[in-house]
Amino acid sequence: MREVAVVGVGMTKFGSSEKSNVELFAEAAMEAITESNLEPKDMQALFLGNVFGGFEEGQVTLSAFAAADIGVPYIPTTRFEGACASGSVAIRDAYIWVASGFYDIVLAGGTEKALAMGTPYATRTFAMGSDSRYEAPTGLTFPGVFAMMAHLYARKYGIPLEKLKERMALVAIKNHHNGTFHPKAHFRKEITIQDVYNSIKVAEPLQLYDCCPFSDGAAAVVLASAEKAKKLTDKPVYFAGVGQCSAPPLPNQKDITRIKAREASAKQAYDMAGLSPKDIDICELHDCFTIAEIAATESLGFFDFGEGSKGVEAGETQIGGRIPINPSGGLKARGHPIGATGAAQVYEIAKQLRGECGERQVEGAKVGMTDTLGADLCMVCNMIFKI
Amino acid sequence: MREVAVVGVGMTKFGSSEKSNVELFAEAAMEAITESNLEPKDMQALFLGNVFGGFEEGQVTLSAFAAADIGVPYIPTTRFEGACASGSVAIRDAYIWVASGFYDIVLAGGTEKALAMGTPYATRTFAMGSDSRYEAPTGLTFPGVFAMMAHLYARKYGIPLEKLKERMALVAIKNHHNGTFHPKAHFRKEITIQDVYNSIKVAEPLQLYDCCPFSDGAAAVVLASAEKAKKLTDKPVYFAGVGQCSAPPLPNQKDITRIKAREASAKQAYDMAGLSPKDIDICELHDCFTIAEIAATESLGFFDFGEGSKGVEAGETQIGGRIPINPSGGLKARGHPIGATGAAQVYEIAKQLRGECGERQVEGAKVGMTDTLGADLCMVCNMIFKI
Repeated sequence: MREVAVVGVGMTKFGSSEKSNVELFAEAAMEAITESNLEPKDMQALFLGNVFGGFEEGQVTLSAFAAADIGVPYIPTTRFEGACASGSVAIRDAYIWVASGFYDIVLAGGTEKALAMGTPYATRTFAMGSDSRYEAPTGLTFPGVFAMMAHLYARKYGIPLEKLKERMALVAIKNHHNGTFHPKAHFRKEITIQDVYNSIKVAEPLQLYDCCPFSDGAAAVVLASAEKAKKLTDKPVYFAGVGQCSAPPLPNQKDITRIKAREASAKQAYDMAGLSPKDIDICELHDCFTIAEIAATESLGFFDFGEGSKGVEAGETQIGGRIPINPSGGLKARGHPIGATGAAQVYEIAKQLRGECGERQVEGAKVGMTDTLGADLCMVCNMIFKI
Repeated sequence: MREVAVVGVGMTKFGSSEKSNVELFAEAAMEAITESNLEPKDMQALFLGNVFGGFEEGQVTLSAFAAADIGVPYIPTTRFEGACASGSVAIRDAYIWVASGFYDIVLAGGTEKALAMGTPYATRTFAMGSDSRYEAPTGLTFPGVFAMMAHLYARKYGIPLEKLKERMALVAIKNHHNGTFHPKAHFRKEITIQDVYNSIKVAEPLQLYDCCPFSDGAAAVVLASAEKAKKLTDKPVYFAGVGQCSAPPLPNQKDITRIKAREASAKQAYDMAGLSPKDIDICELHDCFTIAEIAATESLGFFDFGEGSKGVEAGETQIGGRIPINPSGGLKARGHPIGATGAAQVYEIAKQLRGECGERQVEGAKVGMTDTLGADLCMVCNMIFKI
């Protein structure tokens, strides 16, 4: 297979939007295409991540209408759904179509109007990512799942719950801080530990500020063969490795403090790239809840198991730290329009590796990784990029 | 890219089922895996077509749970949505992962519980495949779209509507006849022209018997590299060509008697295969309505434009005719569990090319084609197979 590069990225402002999913994606796509020094007619195929278009707008088949909206209706288009990992899954799939030589230039990304659903309805639709037979009927939704993860993590590693809560709050504070530097972030405000503690309780030990928001938004990426990429841009960002793995329903997962699907997915990406965790300069990962970021940094190999929360406390995951995590603000502050999140991660990694991130720039970043987690910890996609 | 073959196929009985989407797919998958002389653990990835799992069962992320149900939870899995073409799109995508050399053996297919929704609800959810901004608000649903197609077709080619209705009825009669020989078909009963005429009017000139049913069901296919395939089976069925194309919303399509997305998709498949319509021995195509079959036979190149309905009358599309269309019974009689339909078409072509279809066998078939149409005539996928 041949080398593939990201030649352009785009995203809408994340937050609340009156635009449709198609319009949001078109906005992000046009930015990515323009940045690639290309035109819509150059796109040979479209790969679109979206989870709940049917519930948000009574609209499926979004990929076809997205292509039409940017003026290239007669190309192959496909919608991908892997819960919150949908955008990443779409991009990984786009990768193989270019790597194989079938296409030279394709458009991929995701779009979602999660906020448009309203919180109660969104919470219930999100829960459709859990098993409808054995889990959903118990009433467990995702905040509960990650609250359990926090309790189990604290017990497993002998960390007093109050200490873990403090470290979880530091994740939220860091990501909100990073988000202040991202012009397209959903939230651009600093928060304090008191803000976290004073926010409403969602599911013990998670306060509201331990949880990412529902967001509307879209992000898009143009992929090209390395040969084409070199002609289009001075700064191609190459795919080094990709990985993806699913998992069984939650009751069949033995230890949710370690997400086995993530460990398998990350290993695929590392092996393909010929790299190890110490080679990663920067990582955008799935901090849907603060405890999720801590657990992810361990499964991705940046910290030993049980050490992730200490790493946060030591500042190792800040911009300027040993392994900057979520310089974009992550799901917590940049926002979480679920089908778009993976594409927004690639947007950040591409911008970072090209040195275009201004105040949130991680100096000297040459290798970056994305990590997206979907549903009941049962859908993980990782991608490693290099310049 | 290397050659890829279908080494095993499976499908559930189509019709009404109390099984879940996951259970249906698992049943079809186990049949396909067993027929391939493989075990679930040999599957390296899973590609699943499904359109409305969220509406049918409050379940998304179906691909992960489907993998878990057959005992291989920790593999990459993805759900594909391209409206009624979802199963075909999933299989075409699986093809590239094997053709590229990334995987050697993968599982693909689709599942749907369309009938479980009930007709009024299903009609409305199906309409989510049309544009939610400009078309859905008019109240137009798919029977109306294809009724318009029939009127336009009759006018364009100067065929009296009553004559066209008669020829459309012959499509239904043929497909029901073929379906009587398919043990897994939704309907296995002969119908007469009087049955068609006496059935309720759905949308002039379409009677109920001009319309395919909503069905529950699943179908699955195991794909393998040619090298692996030769070791697994004496009868590998090779991919010769694949094509896919989208289209803009209906109001932006100039002439719906010719589906431009289909013409583009079929051309891709023919060009890749180095074949032309006259080389096709047998075709499973998207007869969601009887007029749809007639239009499809023209866009795929089996008849000149305007001649398709005469071909039906002349018996050219029957088993034993010049170009047998839908020997399985098609969507009309085999049934239409939307996300599974494309996979059921591949099931039929594989069985036909292997000479295993008993009373519905098309003698000497060596090259077969599938054709699946999704949504507002805006999602088409074609695949050509050969032995």
